Amino acid sequence: MTRIIMHGCNGHMGRVISDLVEKDENATIVAGVDVFNNKANSYTVYKTMKDCNVDADVIIDFSNASAVDGMIEAAVEKKLPVVLCTTGLSDEQLAKVNEASKQIPILRSANMSIGINALMKILNLATKLLADEGYDIEIIEKHHNLKLDAPSGTALALADCINDAADNRYDYIYDRHDRRQKRDKKELGISAMRGGTIVGEHEIFYAGTDEVIEIKHTAYSKAVFAKGSIAAAHFLKDQKPGMYDMSDVLDLD
Amino acid sequence: MTRIIMHGCNGHMGRVISDLVEKDENATIVAGVDVFNNKANSYTVYKTMKDCNVDADVIIDFSNASAVDGMIEAAVEKKLPVVLCTTGLSDEQLAKVNEASKQIPILRSANMSIGINALMKILNLATKLLADEGYDIEIIEKHHNLKLDAPSGTALALADCINDAADNRYDYIYDRHDRRQKRDKKELGISAMRGGTIVGEHEIFYAGTDEVIEIKHTAYSKAVFAKGSIAAAHFLKDQKPGMYDMSDVLDLD
Amino acid sequence: MTRIIMHGCNGHMGRVISDLVEKDENATIVAGVDVFNNKANSYTVYKTMKDCNVDADVIIDFSNASAVDGMIEAAVEKKLPVVLCTTGLSDEQLAKVNEASKQIPILRSANMSIGINALMKILNLATKLLADEGYDIEIIEKHHNLKLDAPSGTALALADCINDAADNRYDYIYDRHDRRQKRDKKELGISAMRGGTIVGEHEIFYAGTDEVIEIKHTAYSKAVFAKGSIAAAHFLKDQKPGMYDMSDVLDLD
Amino acid sequence: MTRIIMHGCNGHMGRVISDLVEKDENATIVAGVDVFNNKANSYTVYKTMKDCNVDADVIIDFSNASAVDGMIEAAVEKKLPVVLCTTGLSDEQLAKVNEASKQIPILRSANMSIGINALMKILNLATKLLADEGYDIEIIEKHHNLKLDAPSGTALALADCINDAADNRYDYIYDRHDRRQKRDKKELGISAMRGGTIVGEHEIFYAGTDEVIEIKHTAYSKAVFAKGSIAAAHFLKDQKPGMYDMSDVLDLD
Repeated sequence: MTRIIMHGCNGHMGRVISDLVEKDENATIVAGVDVFNNKANSYTVYKTMKDCNVDADVIIDFSNASAVDGMIEAAVEKKLPVVLCTTGLSDEQLAKVNEASKQIPILRSANMSIGINALMKILNLATKLLADEGYDIEIIEKHHNLKLDAPSGTALALADCINDAADNRYDYIYDRHDRRQKRDKKELGISAMRGGTIVGEHEIFYAGTDEVIEIKHTAYSKAVFAKGSIAAAHFLKDQKPGMYDMSDVLDLD
Repeated sequence: MTRIIMHGCNGHMGRVISDLVEKDENATIVAGVDVFNNKANSYTVYKTMKDCNVDADVIIDFSNASAVDGMIEAAVEKKLPVVLCTTGLSDEQLAKVNEASKQIPILRSANMSIGINALMKILNLATKLLADEGYDIEIIEKHHNLKLDAPSGTALALADCINDAADNRYDYIYDRHDRRQKRDKKELGISAMRGGTIVGEHEIFYAGTDEVIEIKHTAYSKAVFAKGSIAAAHFLKDQKPGMYDMSDVLDLD
Repeated sequence: MTRIIMHGCNGHMGRVISDLVEKDENATIVAGVDVFNNKANSYTVYKTMKDCNVDADVIIDFSNASAVDGMIEAAVEKKLPVVLCTTGLSDEQLAKVNEASKQIPILRSANMSIGINALMKILNLATKLLADEGYDIEIIEKHHNLKLDAPSGTALALADCINDAADNRYDYIYDRHDRRQKRDKKELGISAMRGGTIVGEHEIFYAGTDEVIEIKHTAYSKAVFAKGSIAAAHFLKDQKPGMYDMSDVLDLD
Repeated sequence: MTRIIMHGCNGHMGRVISDLVEKDENATIVAGVDVFNNKANSYTVYKTMKDCNVDADVIIDFSNASAVDGMIEAAVEKKLPVVLCTTGLSDEQLAKVNEASKQIPILRSANMSIGINALMKILNLATKLLADEGYDIEIIEKHHNLKLDAPSGTALALADCINDAADNRYDYIYDRHDRRQKRDKKELGISAMRGGTIVGEHEIFYAGTDEVIEIKHTAYSKAVFAKGSIAAAHFLKDQKPGMYDMSDVLDLD
C-alpha cells in the first residue's frame, strides 16, 4: 500500500488524483495539503506541509510555484519522497530541488503521462531503425481551440527525442506554404491543427518508399497526468535519494 | 459499349487509362492518337486527331497544351464529345474550348478523381450541417517528398468548397508557430505534411465540443484519375453540347 | 432565452446538462425535478413534474422509464414541449408518448449527439454517391473495455442508415476468420474493437479502386449527448405539436 | 557495389526488383535467371542458375518452389549468398536450405518488408512497456476485397510478436458480436476489414485509461517487398554462412 500526501489537493489535478486513488487498491491518500479548504475531502486537509504530521510514503505535488519551496523543506525534514508535478519553477527553485534530491528521492518530468513517456522510448527505437533507411519523419499535433502556443511543448519534446536518436540531423520546419521546393532530407516538419476541445493528439510519421509507419498518442482527458503521477508515487517510495523522471518509472527490467 | 479515342495514348496517363479500359467490359479503345509511336499498343495509333477517322463515341484527352487546339477542332468537325484532362491551357485556349462546347459536349475538371469529387459534395453538406453549430474546420494534406507546392491544389480546392458552403466566413491559416494566441473562429487551418512516396491524402476535421468528425480521402495511385476519366467518358457520350465537370458525373437522380 | 426544466436533474446526465447550460447565454435552467435531492443545485428542485409550477419553455428529460409517464402527463397539462432522452421505454409507454405528441411537441432520438446525427446525413449522401460506383462499405467501431454489446447500437444504426440509402443491398458481416473466400459485393462488414476507456469511435470506409474515403466520428465525453439535448430544447420550444427527432434539429434551410 | 543475380527475373516481383535496382547506385543486376525469357531485360537471362557463370555477390530469389532446390545447389557450389523470398517450400526443402546454410549465408523471412520488420521490433518494445501498465492491445488489419484469408498472415505474425513480448498472456479473439460480455484482460482482438484495392494496413492499439497509443503500418504497393529484398542483399553479401532473417538486417549497432 502506498500512502500518499496530496499537496495541492483542492486544485483541479489534486481532485482528479484523489478520485483516481480511490479506485487504486494499492494506494491511499492519508492527508491533503491546500491553503483552500472549501471542498469536501475524504481525508484531513492541512494548510501547509509543515503542519501535516501524518505517516506517509510519498508526496504528490500539483500545487503552484510559490508553495513548492516550503513543501520541499518539509519533505527533506520528514524524509519523504516527492513526485513534483508543479511547473513554472524558477532556476533558483530548481537548484534547491536538486540540492534536496541529495537527501530524498524527487521525480520531475516534462510530461507526467505514462503514454507520452512510453511514446518517447518507442520513438527512440523507431528512429534508430528507420532514419538511416531513408524514411522521412514528420509530426502532426492536434489540440483544442484555446491553446495559445503551437506547436505544443510535447510535440517539441518528441521532436527533440527523435533528433537525439538520429544524431541531430534534422531541422524543424513549421510552414511550407511560402516556398516552392521539394522536401530536403534534413527537414522534420511539425504541423499544428487546432479545433474544438481536443485534449491532445500527437502523430509521428515515418514515410518511406511505398510504406508509412505512423505512431499516434491520443489523450482523452487530463486524468492521464494524474494516473502517471500515481504510478510515479508507487515507484518513488522505494528509491534512494536522487533525481528521477518518468522514463525511470517505465524502465524495462 | 463506349468506344473511346485515347488522345495522348503513349503518355503516362494514356497508358494507365488503356490498361484500365481493358478491364472494363463496357468500354473499348478503338484508336489512339500520339505524336510518339514507340510503344506496343493494342489499337492503331494516329499522329493527329485529324488523321483518325475511326468510328467512336468520345475522346479522352491527356496530352499537352500544344496538342489541344487541333484535337478540339477535329472533335467539333467529327461531332465527338471530349473529356478534356490536359491542364495548363491558356485563357485563349479556354475561350476556344468554351466556344466549341456550343457544338459538342466537353467535360473539364480541376481533379478527375471520382473520390475527390464525391468528397466535395460531402464537404458541402457537412459544412452546412456543422459550421453554424460551432464546429471548427481544419485541413491536413499529405504528399510525397518531391512535391513542390504546399498546400496542394486539391487542398485549396477543398477549402474553397468549404468556404463556399459557409458563406465565405473563413480565412486560410498556414502556420501558427510564430504567434501566441488562441484560434479565431474565422480561421481554417491548412497543414501540409511531406514524406516518402505518399500519392495524396486529404483529411478534413470538423471539431466541436467533445466530438470530432473527420473525413479523409486517400489516393493509392494515379489510376484514380484514369478511372475518373473513363467514368466521365461513359457519362459524356449521351450528353447534349455544353460544358460539364466531374460533379455532373456524380449527380444524384 | 430558452427556459428549461431539467427532469432528472440529479442523475449523471442531468448534472452534465446543468453544467453546460450555465455556459450557454441563451438558455437557463429555471427548475429541476428529481426524487433525489441530495446535491447542491443552483435552481429549485421539485419531487415530481406535477409539483413544479415554474414558468418554462421546454422540459429536458434524462430520468428513468418509471418517471416518464407522470412527466408526460404533466407536460401535456402545462402545454410544455419535451426533449425525451430516457431510454428503455415499453411499447405501451411509447404509445402514450405518441398520443401526447398530438398536443405537445416531443423530440426523441436513438442518439442525442449532434455529431452522430450529422454523420447519418453525411453517410446518406456518401452512400448515394459511392455505392453505385463500386465502392465497398465497411464499419469499424471502438469502445471501452466494459461495454457488453458488440457492435454498438450506434454502429448498427449507421449501418441501417447506409443500407437505407443503398436500397437495402447489404448483408452485415461480423466475422471473416472462419471462412476462406473473397469479399462479396453484398457484404457490409462491421468490426468492434474494445479497449481502455474509449468513449466511442465510429469509422465508415468507402473503399474503391486505388482510393478510399473514410468518415470518422469520435466522442471524447458524454457531454456530447448533453449538448445535443440542449440544442434540441432550443429547437423544440418553437415547434407545433408532433413527434420530432435530432435530424429535424439539423435540418438545412 | 552489390552485384545481384535475380533468380525469377521475369516474374512480377523480379520485374519490380529490377526496376528498383536501376535507381539504386550501390546495386546492379549482373544477370537474371528464368525459364521464361519473353521480356526485354537490361541483363542477360539464363535458363537455370547452373548455366549462369557471371561474377556476382548475392542471389535474390523470387521464383517458385520447384526452382528452389536447383538454385540452392548452384549457390552452394558458387559460394553465393541467397536472399530466399520464394514461399510455400516443403519441410524437406526447408531442411535442405538449413543444410546449405552451413556453407553459405541464407536469409529467409515471413515478410520481406523493412517496415513490417521494423514494426515487429517496435511492437516488442511497446508491449514490454505497456502490457503490464494495464493497456489493452487490439489489432485491426485492412486489405483488398479479393483476399481470401482473414486475418492476414502478417496480422497473426504481429499478434504472435506481441504475445511473445507479454509472456503469452493473450488469447486471440476474432468476433464479439455473438456474446454479451465485457472484454477480458486476456483478450487480444483481431479484426479484418476488406474493401477496394487496399494493399495492406495493420494497426495495433494500446488502449489505457484515457489514453491510446496506436501504431500503424501502411503498404502502398508490393514494391515494399522488393525494397526489403534489396536491403537484404546488401546486408547478406558480407555475412558468414548461416540462417538470417529480416530482423538481422535491421539490427541496431
